[in-house]
Amino acid sequence: MHLNIAVLGGDGIGPEVVAQSIKCLRSVEETFGHSFTFKKALIGASAIKKTGNPLPKETLELCKNSDATLFGALGSPEFDDNPKAKVWPEQGLLKLRKELDLFANIRPVKVFPSLVKQSPLPKISVQNTDLVIFRELSGGIYYGDKSLSKDQNSATDTCTYTEAEISRITHLAFKSARSRKKKVTLVDKANVLETSRLWRRVVRSISESYPDVVLECLFIDNAAVQMILNPSDFDVILTDNMFGDILSDQGSVIAGSIGLLPSASVGLEHAMFEPIHGSFPDAKGKNIANPVASILSMAMLLQHFKMNEESDAVVAAVLKSFSKKIVTPDILGSSKYGTNYVGDFIADNIME
Amino acid sequence: MHLNIAVLGGDGIGPEVVAQSIKCLRSVEETFGHSFTFKKALIGASAIKKTGNPLPKETLELCKNSDATLFGALGSPEFDDNPKAKVWPEQGLLKLRKELDLFANIRPVKVFPSLVKQSPLPKISVQNTDLVIFRELSGGIYYGDKSLSKDQNSATDTCTYTEAEISRITHLAFKSARSRKKKVTLVDKANVLETSRLWRRVVRSISESYPDVVLECLFIDNAAVQMILNPSDFDVILTDNMFGDILSDQGSVIAGSIGLLPSASVGLEHAMFEPIHGSFPDAKGKNIANPVASILSMAMLLQHFKMNEESDAVVAAVLKSFSKKIVTPDILGSSKYGTNYVGDFIADNIME
Ligand SMILES: CC(C)[C@H](C(=O)O)[C@@H](O)C(=O)O
Ligand SMILES: CC(C)[C@H](C(=O)O)[C@@H](O)C(=O)O
Repeated sequence: MHLNIAVLGGDGIGPEVVAQSIKCLRSVEETFGHSFTFKKALIGASAIKKTGNPLPKETLELCKNSDATLFGALGSPEFDDNPKAKVWPEQGLLKLRKELDLFANIRPVKVFPSLVKQSPLPKISVQNTDLVIFRELSGGIYYGDKSLSKDQNSATDTCTYTEAEISRITHLAFKSARSRKKKVTLVDKANVLETSRLWRRVVRSISESYPDVVLECLFIDNAAVQMILNPSDFDVILTDNMFGDILSDQGSVIAGSIGLLPSASVGLEHAMFEPIHGSFPDAKGKNIANPVASILSMAMLLQHFKMNEESDAVVAAVLKSFSKKIVTPDILGSSKYGTNYVGDFIADNIME
Repeated sequence: MHLNIAVLGGDGIGPEVVAQSIKCLRSVEETFGHSFTFKKALIGASAIKKTGNPLPKETLELCKNSDATLFGALGSPEFDDNPKAKVWPEQGLLKLRKELDLFANIRPVKVFPSLVKQSPLPKISVQNTDLVIFRELSGGIYYGDKSLSKDQNSATDTCTYTEAEISRITHLAFKSARSRKKKVTLVDKANVLETSRLWRRVVRSISESYPDVVLECLFIDNAAVQMILNPSDFDVILTDNMFGDILSDQGSVIAGSIGLLPSASVGLEHAMFEPIHGSFPDAKGKNIANPVASILSMAMLLQHFKMNEESDAVVAAVLKSFSKKIVTPDILGSSKYGTNYVGDFIADNIME
């Protein structure tokens, strides 16, 4: 199979971890006889510095014309600390998601048996965790009208959802549940928000077409607690953009390191694969960042193109790195292995 | 001191736990020579059933004319499962908060030494936890315009904040930090929301009047993770209505049971005291609900009226119940003590 892959390293540790995924893809190419072409482009703080724009036109064009995008991370403290900035790195990612119409962010949270003790939570509650979050990614308060009053004394954000927006991700979530533990948990705040009540109505009505799947509804405040206390109770979590942002970062607590969790952002025409971690500016260039989240995101890319065997081979190589303790220091404090070494090990162990 | 206290038991276990607080207040009355008058009123599902209104006029009047309100809990599954309902219990609480202008919900999260092992989190990270959440309670997306399109296919919620709204709770938070560990953590999503950027600007500018207090800013997704991983790093957490709802329920994970956490909701003229837990309909009438969250909320009421010695006496009696293991089953699975017995024990042990 031939794939054109856009590579957006972004800021901080982004480029370093994405480089490991590319190494592994080279190894998949050779082992399985595929051909992948990589083209790099700028996004985020580094794009602002060079072009003034967090998502340069060429970057967007490249992604639109590629089969898939591998994304690293973005963000930089110099922008976070300047509330008066007119542009900031995150705008690049938000615009890219919107332009590619990536409406579903899929974030699996699995606790690898060899890493159970890595989790700060009790073994009993984490060891059987295998859940996946379906976060709506192209609507809600992220994209609604925003305004600051003329006197700058009042600000507004708007959260809007339409039935069509809710419907398309809901079908994805229920289809996924069908091939899993057959449960969907809708997380919302229907006792307060009108949009949540629309979600409940639409999701309930769609659930009737999936009689083999159980639907459960939880308020976000309760869900945030249950995800920590009883993560293995969940199967598919379906939620909006804002709540999904919060819950999926929480998933990293269960897994024991935010450096482990991958994600896929998909739409009808495009797909992007990105670790859930941020740009960790302090770790940049130190060769300590965990490349596993990026590599597992790349495995989701392979799966997306039905290269299941290839994807399994990548995951197997990652598991081997865990069992041989070839891991970065976030997983094993005493580890002397760096980003590159771990990436090399995983790439070298991708076998048919 | 004489106090007129409005008592709103509400739904589920609400009335049972509030009854224990009243017992304890009777004991404070006797021991310290005060005089408290209690008047009960309806709110929530029970109010809807009797009057059609989740906040009957008499209830609001009573609260307005009392010195303080003791609130239990509200909510009932029959309303949650009916997205087409025109009234529901939570509207009563939301309206009450608004009408009394209770703009600051103060939620302390402390891990009692005798209950450290109660927390599912590692001892080392919880044992020194002593944080307090200042949640803005009368604005934001809870109270902004809401609408459902005529064809019912699109819904909108609006989140608005003004400088004045942010300012008043920010001053409370900084004043509190001054008498504590001198750190305020603002939690927001300033990389996405306009309201968050206003929060950052206002809070930063106010922080300059408190040079002895350190201000730190965290994005909500990261804050939700850090609160679980490193709860003892926090002192005062300042945040908006929606994020505060989520973070403060998370606080219950640290403490080991949601049945332990109290809160005070204060404004310039009124104050209400309520456990952070919900109405737990399944536990209603079973004499198993933990009354400690309500009793500690009542201790915050005493403190609010500068009855510090009295408040300390209540907390001391609660601690004694822990050390004697006179606790409900949520704290000690094998415990045979019920709500009433624990309430009696604490009331009997309030001593000068
Ligand atoms: C960087 C930020 C805008 C982004 C988001 O909030 O969606 C990130 O937190 C994520 O979860 O991918
Ligand atoms: C009952 C509900 C409306 C309420 C809220 O969201 O504020 C509750 O969760 C709380 O935290 O007091």
